[in-house]
Amino acid sequence: MPSSKTRHVTSKSQRLMLEQGLIRQAGNGTFYLMPLLQRSLQKAVDLVDHFMQRHASAQKLTLPILTAASLWRQSGRLESAGPELMRTTDRHGKQQILGPTHEESITALVASISPVSYRAFPLRLYQISTKFRDEMKPRFGLMRAKEFLMKDLYTFDVGRGEARETYEEVNEAYRKLFDAVGVGYVKVRGDTGTIGGSESHEYHFPSEVGEDQLVCCGECGMGWNQEMFGGCERCGGANVSRQAGIEVAHAFILDDKYSKTMGAKFLAQNGKPETLQMGCYGIGVTRLLAAGVEVLSGEKGHSVAVCVGRRSRFV
Amino acid sequence: MPSSKTRHVTSKSQRLMLEQGLIRQAGNGTFYLMPLLQRSLQKAVDLVDHFMQRHASAQKLTLPILTAASLWRQSGRLESAGPELMRTTDRHGKQQILGPTHEESITALVASISPVSYRAFPLRLYQISTKFRDEMKPRFGLMRAKEFLMKDLYTFDVGRGEARETYEEVNEAYRKLFDAVGVGYVKVRGDTGTIGGSESHEYHFPSEVGEDQLVCCGECGMGWNQEMFGGCERCGGANVSRQAGIEVAHAFILDDKYSKTMGAKFLAQNGKPETLQMGCYGIGVTRLLAAGVEVLSGEKGHSVAVCVGRRSRFV
Repeated sequence: MPSSKTRHVTSKSQRLMLEQGLIRQAGNGTFYLMPLLQRSLQKAVDLVDHFMQRHASAQKLTLPILTAASLWRQSGRLESAGPELMRTTDRHGKQQILGPTHEESITALVASISPVSYRAFPLRLYQISTKFRDEMKPRFGLMRAKEFLMKDLYTFDVGRGEARETYEEVNEAYRKLFDAVGVGYVKVRGDTGTIGGSESHEYHFPSEVGEDQLVCCGECGMGWNQEMFGGCERCGGANVSRQAGIEVAHAFILDDKYSKTMGAKFLAQNGKPETLQMGCYGIGVTRLLAAGVEVLSGEKGHSVAVCVGRRSRFV
Repeated sequence: MPSSKTRHVTSKSQRLMLEQGLIRQAGNGTFYLMPLLQRSLQKAVDLVDHFMQRHASAQKLTLPILTAASLWRQSGRLESAGPELMRTTDRHGKQQILGPTHEESITALVASISPVSYRAFPLRLYQISTKFRDEMKPRFGLMRAKEFLMKDLYTFDVGRGEARETYEEVNEAYRKLFDAVGVGYVKVRGDTGTIGGSESHEYHFPSEVGEDQLVCCGECGMGWNQEMFGGCERCGGANVSRQAGIEVAHAFILDDKYSKTMGAKFLAQNGKPETLQMGCYGIGVTRLLAAGVEVLSGEKGHSVAVCVGRRSRFV
């Protein structure tokens, strides 16, 4: 018989993290991260910093959480992202979005210094900061919270070919990062959704509580989020396996979706301004911890500390 | 003749940080922290972590930014803090405060595990996170921004004497921290304001653009924020000097202002629950960088990098 405190808890990791004092619930979808988990979180942040800076040549900055709603109107996402956006209105009546992601913000920043010579690119800028989503149904503790820590990298290139090279390079950095984390993962083709762009790949920890269904080709090994699957486009194989997964990272080729609307340009070799090509790359940092506990812990919970502490790199 | 971009810039540090690409303005009181400043910020965070953990025996955690407005109503601060509070209402109609400080939040956390044995105290918990204040007039760049990074430590003790010992110990850690920062500072008696409690001390970097007026006794050296000055209570000396200062830190003895209202208790030696005594201790981390640049830089600005980088500890 579960206690009153854990009765509505819907995943093993949430139950274990609550029971062992790693997190405590503050509100609907908000949590206190207690000192023991804070240490693991710091290790996760250091790990992400390391791979972003050393393996993806990215520079760290901080974009404000408060993002002018007018920028979201300009990109068209004020409508498409809809009720998940948390908003606040300042004393001068200006509406601000509590950033769930920062494509508008970073593109406005680059547009404000445009056009910079083509020699300055590729430009790769990332942050690790608190993001907000007004989930209809926050659940699974840190896995689907209203307030969470995310790493978001944004890249700017002078052409589609260059943006593709950046995409390969960042995905390679992700491969190294997830190898270092030490939790088995699956990479699949994803839907670009409200972020947009022409292509994306998701990184999942396979788990029963995962909210995505993944399809893997039994012959060539290629994977898809089920919503993208229409037969194996690589080998034509018909033999597939299916499993549920927790999305822990997502990489997008954005093309010029944001840069064109918002005027983020570079000065080409011929001296003319041209529109930059973008990519964006997220990792759910707090979700990574919860998903790691979900996948690695035994039901009894005595291995939670080990999972967060020793079996993965969050020591 | 200042350029259009810096025309409304009101402090040397803001002008220099903008000109040298350390920050860029995002909105009214919000800023992009560019990669060079981000590195200094990381050093400042590491420094604060070091002194909090090693010299004040504090443990780091994360409290959510979204704080239930009902908690602020309970403490009485929903009214007293008034229009500076930024608010958001979630899709279920619940109002949340974007925390400017977290006395309510941490006290609710400790109350939720109350009463813990007296043996568990002192308890010292801190975070370094983004805070929000809807300033009437944001200005001086990072010095008075609507969104800023702050370290906030909260302490819990079993009695007033113990809380006083904690107060002395944390103030001693602050002394060591500011000595390490290497920017000359002044410590003065402060007004407890909307935070409340019975006593507080502020730490200031002396500067013409500082918004506080400080009074120092020329005989015994004791200092006050002018709003607290009514003659030297220590030596009775009448010979005082005055200067303006930028507040970079503030330490408070809170007594039971929050713990009593919100039920944060401990189990005394006699087995009965008693109310905890609290303290809170803030450091404006982004403000520290701006104030350091303000105090140490030459007008020409060529020493900004040196100030952020070498003359203080933010290397």
